Amino acid sequence: MQEHLPIKVPEDLRKLPLHSLTVLGEQIRSFLIDHVAENGGHFSSSLGVVELTIALHYVFDTPVDKLVWDVGHQAYVHKLLTGRKNFFYSNRQLGGISGFPCREESEFDAFGTGHSSTSISAALGMAVAARHNKNTKRQHIAVIGDGAMTAGLAFEALNNVGFEQPNILIILNDNNMSIDNNVGALQNYLIKLTTGEQYNALKSQVKKVFSILPSAKWSIDVLRKLEKAIKGGVLQHSNLFEALNIRYFGPIDGHDIQKLVHILEKLKHIPGPKILHCITTKGNGYLPAMQEKEKWHAPGKFDKETGITLSQKPHSEDTITFQEIFGNTLIELAKANTNIVAVSPAMLSGSALTKMKKEMPDRVFDVGIAEQHAVTFSAGLATDGLRPFCTIYSTFLQRAYDQIIHDVALQKLDVVLCIDRAGVVGADGPTHHGAFDIAYLRCIPNMIGASPMDATDFRNLLYTAQHHDCKGTFAIRYPKSNTSRIEPCLPFMQIPIGKGRKISSGKGIAILSIGPIGQEVQQACRQLQDDGIQAAHYDLRFFKPLDIELLHEVFQQFSSVITVEDGCIIGGIGSAVIEFMVEQGYQATVKRLGLPDSFAIHGSIPELHRLYAYDKDAIVATVKEVYTNQSPVTAIL
Amino acid sequence: MQEHLPIKVPEDLRKLPLHSLTVLGEQIRSFLIDHVAENGGHFSSSLGVVELTIALHYVFDTPVDKLVWDVGHQAYVHKLLTGRKNFFYSNRQLGGISGFPCREESEFDAFGTGHSSTSISAALGMAVAARHNKNTKRQHIAVIGDGAMTAGLAFEALNNVGFEQPNILIILNDNNMSIDNNVGALQNYLIKLTTGEQYNALKSQVKKVFSILPSAKWSIDVLRKLEKAIKGGVLQHSNLFEALNIRYFGPIDGHDIQKLVHILEKLKHIPGPKILHCITTKGNGYLPAMQEKEKWHAPGKFDKETGITLSQKPHSEDTITFQEIFGNTLIELAKANTNIVAVSPAMLSGSALTKMKKEMPDRVFDVGIAEQHAVTFSAGLATDGLRPFCTIYSTFLQRAYDQIIHDVALQKLDVVLCIDRAGVVGADGPTHHGAFDIAYLRCIPNMIGASPMDATDFRNLLYTAQHHDCKGTFAIRYPKSNTSRIEPCLPFMQIPIGKGRKISSGKGIAILSIGPIGQEVQQACRQLQDDGIQAAHYDLRFFKPLDIELLHEVFQQFSSVITVEDGCIIGGIGSAVIEFMVEQGYQATVKRLGLPDSFAIHGSIPELHRLYAYDKDAIVATVKEVYTNQSPVTAIL
Repeated sequence: MQEHLPIKVPEDLRKLPLHSLTVLGEQIRSFLIDHVAENGGHFSSSLGVVELTIALHYVFDTPVDKLVWDVGHQAYVHKLLTGRKNFFYSNRQLGGISGFPCREESEFDAFGTGHSSTSISAALGMAVAARHNKNTKRQHIAVIGDGAMTAGLAFEALNNVGFEQPNILIILNDNNMSIDNNVGALQNYLIKLTTGEQYNALKSQVKKVFSILPSAKWSIDVLRKLEKAIKGGVLQHSNLFEALNIRYFGPIDGHDIQKLVHILEKLKHIPGPKILHCITTKGNGYLPAMQEKEKWHAPGKFDKETGITLSQKPHSEDTITFQEIFGNTLIELAKANTNIVAVSPAMLSGSALTKMKKEMPDRVFDVGIAEQHAVTFSAGLATDGLRPFCTIYSTFLQRAYDQIIHDVALQKLDVVLCIDRAGVVGADGPTHHGAFDIAYLRCIPNMIGASPMDATDFRNLLYTAQHHDCKGTFAIRYPKSNTSRIEPCLPFMQIPIGKGRKISSGKGIAILSIGPIGQEVQQACRQLQDDGIQAAHYDLRFFKPLDIELLHEVFQQFSSVITVEDGCIIGGIGSAVIEFMVEQGYQATVKRLGLPDSFAIHGSIPELHRLYAYDKDAIVATVKEVYTNQSPVTAIL
Repeated sequence: MQEHLPIKVPEDLRKLPLHSLTVLGEQIRSFLIDHVAENGGHFSSSLGVVELTIALHYVFDTPVDKLVWDVGHQAYVHKLLTGRKNFFYSNRQLGGISGFPCREESEFDAFGTGHSSTSISAALGMAVAARHNKNTKRQHIAVIGDGAMTAGLAFEALNNVGFEQPNILIILNDNNMSIDNNVGALQNYLIKLTTGEQYNALKSQVKKVFSILPSAKWSIDVLRKLEKAIKGGVLQHSNLFEALNIRYFGPIDGHDIQKLVHILEKLKHIPGPKILHCITTKGNGYLPAMQEKEKWHAPGKFDKETGITLSQKPHSEDTITFQEIFGNTLIELAKANTNIVAVSPAMLSGSALTKMKKEMPDRVFDVGIAEQHAVTFSAGLATDGLRPFCTIYSTFLQRAYDQIIHDVALQKLDVVLCIDRAGVVGADGPTHHGAFDIAYLRCIPNMIGASPMDATDFRNLLYTAQHHDCKGTFAIRYPKSNTSRIEPCLPFMQIPIGKGRKISSGKGIAILSIGPIGQEVQQACRQLQDDGIQAAHYDLRFFKPLDIELLHEVFQQFSSVITVEDGCIIGGIGSAVIEFMVEQGYQATVKRLGLPDSFAIHGSIPELHRLYAYDKDAIVATVKEVYTNQSPVTAIL
């Protein structure tokens, strides 16, 4: 590969003759296919922007010019062209390079991304800063997908761009996909633009006009002039982006590298804000990925000859993902309870809602990348007695924080928040870990918050949430991981709100956990038992309300307590436990395990549990440490 | 008034002949002017929708049909027409009716509001629920201002509305104002629609076309047909809203009640989503309010004859608002440090940035109602070495939570978050209290968080924030209240990060406070001293990082600690203090004062401090209670 791809930095690239870029593109594509086949990772987004990335670095003077990749999982080509080819083997691995642009990693990564729709705001900031610093030469480019364009943040930015009129180029990378197929009115509008439907409607309208004019005869030349005049005067304004005072160009073929270079060169010299609408194909150049787009967004390892993905091996019969449990259980519940509907911000497949969407298309709402709207829309549904299960990844739920407080909790509307990817998520890293949700939800009034330790509990919590008169949010957090399959499923049982359970008894020391990390605690307890230490284990199950009875029992019986959670320590469940303890006047040593006060890095989930010291071994070690320093129970009530 | 306004419920209204509605409107306007003159409250927004509100209740079958008022401070007329005229004297007062729509208050308040831009999402939820329940008759109306339309949430909702095609009517109440003048590209676009600029451009274009057609002669009739055909085929599609597949009607005069009724009757029978663009004037019918719109948004009490606002009496010479300190100090700092810029989401006057905007127009950015964008835009500015002071009310900052985490803190970009209206805000009530910010910010890594107790400290914190290499967010929270004026201002002093201070010494008991609520603590200490109790008082100043040295001193010396904060207790500063205590193995009784685990109601700020038991008297009472139950210090390190 090194012989074929001698590009170390974009400066090398810019020395190549234009005609050789196509070959370079093919070589990069081939490298990418080889790499992801062997290592896994995001795939088809990057294949879709091979030509675009080359063209951008060819035309613009990066890193002086600022190039911002929205979301950033399409930035593999960018990474390969900017000095990271030799480290690319370590992509998304512990200690390796990030799967997303990252300012600390390279000066070519002008802005770190991961969550969608930030690029226009960031590039606008840079452009305004350049103006402030009297730097008139620097270019600012945001590359944003059509999916990301549906998020409110992108619109807020467009509205501000149209007002500020900075020197900024927005590349609309239109592949008609988020991770799933895109939905929404904007999407339909872009298709119209792309297929020329609007322009055709105009043309037929013009013809209709001519038919009502009795006497005139029209030369082709006059007809063309008429079209051009109307297009010039109206169609330009007719465009949604032109309405926001941003010059629109396109649509153009995003895989035609010569044409891309040609038009980017021209756009570079047009001041002010402009948008270039590029049509690309996700997975372009790798047939299986072009055919099954959802599957190939991040396929894991695969056999590049056959296109058979290797990581999609059938589960062990003994295990099941929390996502599968969620998807299956919700269908089961929805069949019996017609008030249940599901809401997802563009994550149907990730949240295992695809099957329900197929079975009950009218009861599953994919609202686009729009977490804020997903929650307030759910609140609206709930006003009428429906029971929305609004399913959002923990990290993305941060976008809907105000809506949870202001539209759901304050109004005591019964919305079930299904918080997927809670806790560390693995290779996606710091932008995607679901680290903060217990801390940021726990302070909200009218909030019920739970996390199941296992499959049965998860099913029962979902069952309970559908019936319970929550008078507010019923949040259920669960991780991206497997758990033991329990089949046949046990009959549903309602779980009393705020009730935890004792998993195992012990002496002197108690471990309190919440969620599936409790399974690590269970294993730790077994190992400790072999070493002669009998640590009690309690599954708190609810982070709000707390199980007061259980906690009284714990603090009356144990002088040492360890809390374990897959989330941030500050403000988390351990914090809730010591709030209770101090409030009630108990005194015990409490050691809290979980994520420390720094952004967790990327790596596999077990690696991260180990690194941040709340896996089985760390729990065992902590118990032993605490065990040897115990002091007697002292209640000062 | 009762004789002139016999409307108790909208059903009464619907019995009136159409021609009498204008008179009714005048009577309501007169009642409103009288009421606000006497009691204060939001004013000109409601004056702007007198006719619109009457027309909506006249045409639609409320409360069966669902009417959602965006933001809701314009809903006074709605409240008067829906059974709350006799309670209106209590508006915004402790125990009285809310200044915003509130589901618990009336079945006519279909959705509670307060924060902007939620109405379309909520109404869409209701419309989809109606479809789910096979209710084809119910109407769903969202009334949203042009300012609120700039927020991302509204766009996310429009995108989903255009896709779902529900039965929904969006009233765009276009008065060219938020609280301040609106800014942004959307605003300019609406002006173009309103002034017919776009339509005129089309007409002149058509004329241009005619001029290139050599032989034809045009009758007026043919010209009209041509225009109509082109308008039908092109201008409809050309509209931004039509692009999102929502039928656009307007603009129409929002004060012409007959015309409004007429068109609403028609729209009621058109299925699917539609938008009616109404042009209204904020403050319509009260001349002073029409002339000075910003001032009359919520003027407080005033003399209705002279238009002199009574609450805008000059401050006592001894006091100054935290907002004034902020605005003045930032100008002072910005003059010396050219890297400083200010960013505000449509709150220039509320945040006291108007003066700086006048003095340094290029360094103050009003980005529209767009909190998410405000923060990510600030992050972009910071990449280039600028030091943005991004100023957002605590309650609205909830909208930018993800952006603080993902775009600022994670990337260690130096953004100063100026958190205005932190703590209880008074009459605006539960939607507006800044209750949660310490809890939701404290868990974020790379976060510095402070709150000044007084004017000098505030100035010094702002001074410190501009210089400090924060490597992340530097958040400064301050309330909507007065403090002692210190003039001439002392020279600026840099404050060491994470350092609090001892305000007064004591024995046995220490009170730890953060922010201006510390002034209540000071008063309490004085009163306690008179009673022979010497309580120590520490101003923590920073909620992150904590002053470790100070806390060691406290827990080594005192067996009883009280924490006081103007914010939620769960996860707040008191929680941080006991996290430290337990981590370090100290044992003390700690009593935390602040907002309990329920949404704080509305009332004056002192009333709320008293109600939630953290005013001077409550602090005194708590100290006395704790004082009598003290146990000795026991460190178990």
